[in-house]
Amino acid sequence: MSHTSQIKVRGFHLDVYQHVNNARYLEFLEEARWEYLEDSGDIEFFQSLGLAWVIVNININYRASATMGHTLDVKTSLSKVGGKSAVFHQDISIAGSGVAIADADITFVVLNQKTGKAVPIEGDLLERMQSHLNSSKEEL
Amino acid sequence: MSHTSQIKVRGFHLDVYQHVNNARYLEFLEEARWEYLEDSGDIEFFQSLGLAWVIVNININYRASATMGHTLDVKTSLSKVGGKSAVFHQDISIAGSGVAIADADITFVVLNQKTGKAVPIEGDLLERMQSHLNSSKEEL
Amino acid sequence: MSHTSQIKVRGFHLDVYQHVNNARYLEFLEEARWEYLEDSGDIEFFQSLGLAWVIVNININYRASATMGHTLDVKTSLSKVGGKSAVFHQDISIAGSGVAIADADITFVVLNQKTGKAVPIEGDLLERMQSHLNSSKEEL
Amino acid sequence: MSHTSQIKVRGFHLDVYQHVNNARYLEFLEEARWEYLEDSGDIEFFQSLGLAWVIVNININYRASATMGHTLDVKTSLSKVGGKSAVFHQDISIAGSGVAIADADITFVVLNQKTGKAVPIEGDLLERMQSHLNSSKEEL
Repeated sequence: MSHTSQIKVRGFHLDVYQHVNNARYLEFLEEARWEYLEDSGDIEFFQSLGLAWVIVNININYRASATMGHTLDVKTSLSKVGGKSAVFHQDISIAGSGVAIADADITFVVLNQKTGKAVPIEGDLLERMQSHLNSSKEEL
Repeated sequence: MSHTSQIKVRGFHLDVYQHVNNARYLEFLEEARWEYLEDSGDIEFFQSLGLAWVIVNININYRASATMGHTLDVKTSLSKVGGKSAVFHQDISIAGSGVAIADADITFVVLNQKTGKAVPIEGDLLERMQSHLNSSKEEL
Repeated sequence: MSHTSQIKVRGFHLDVYQHVNNARYLEFLEEARWEYLEDSGDIEFFQSLGLAWVIVNININYRASATMGHTLDVKTSLSKVGGKSAVFHQDISIAGSGVAIADADITFVVLNQKTGKAVPIEGDLLERMQSHLNSSKEEL
Repeated sequence: MSHTSQIKVRGFHLDVYQHVNNARYLEFLEEARWEYLEDSGDIEFFQSLGLAWVIVNININYRASATMGHTLDVKTSLSKVGGKSAVFHQDISIAGSGVAIADADITFVVLNQKTGKAVPIEGDLLERMQSHLNSSKEEL
């Protein structure tokens, strides 16, 4: 599965260089991941099991700058599922032209909210998360 | 009592017009109110009684614009205590020159965190809050 | 004319009290004003004359708190046009239930970007801005 | 050279999980880099040459969560200077306890503001930047 969110760049997103500020991109990425999760129906699945996703690493490349008047496409897909963690890949580009603005890998673990500890990704959980990978491929 | 906080304007505080964005000023004001409360010793008093301060109105005038390289003085004092609400007055000016940037009145009620309802400002609570007014005057 | 924007409350909009933070509401209001201006076709009119809108006062009432999962309706209309300034009125409510969350009056002046000075609201400019008021009334 | 900034965690820095939000950490890191640059006297050097620093990658690990009442130490040093880019290393920990909260590598290029293009890091520029590395080592 992959999901594309659209975000319009506004004056309050920019900084002294007239470009979208580094920190704002993390909010755009978070907004897009929420929309992905709503689309996939996974929010309920994870909440019913008392599980939360906790980010342990963000690795983001800034390719070019976006500014006022740009509409951004933020594309989100699950790119990797391991035994202890999984990875979202997200791309930000200018809608229309497709010019690459930024891309990021977001690594997260699955937390048991009662114990506060990460749980191994196995069984039903693994299956559920792998189904996202498969459906991503199908879209290609 | 009055308290002055200093905040240095950074690139990420600015927006498309190269000026501090309207929403950022509310963060500067909130930072200054926290520092005021820490200074006054009131955080413990209110917490021990299970009371929180909840903002019901912000009225802010923007006089001139601050930009990169400016250091701002944010002056905070309690300006009015009524039976149901009280008011903080806050002034933002450029450190050194004293040029007025913004001023705001922040009206809040005192909330009982258990009931979720506003409590009347009377008795010990009134006395405590009025002592802030008195000490403000003494400083003049 | 009036315009309604919708904003979904996300985790990063909230603060320590689990409610949308005061400063965030100003971003929601700014987003809604941009959408209003795009809708009205006024961005081009003002830009072609080298005019910008500069906020001189925000007066915002916080009525109730919005939290995760809420979708907000932000309704924007021009409510008053004077000789030197004009006022946007904006209401934030919870979509569906209509529960009032906040309302604000945003007073602005029209700035000549070359001179950096406010211009009187008269002639074509006055007419243009008054047409917003009229169309607001027609919608009632 | 290395520089330590202190930042107090406030209510408006937190998100729905009562922890400092991912995007806020980027603002804390940016604040700390500005303070580092002011301390080093490099802002003037780079501005006089018409050079700006542009971030091309941020790689940040989130180790533990910070919340209300925490004061954070943000330690910044230049960790690597290459022919085309250089890297800041930054560590965030809880003041007092030293508990690790986050660490990040910030890769940047040096941009000629007139041409808008990255310049090779060589000659005086290389020497200037390498002097930061050396003084970092001396502090150990």
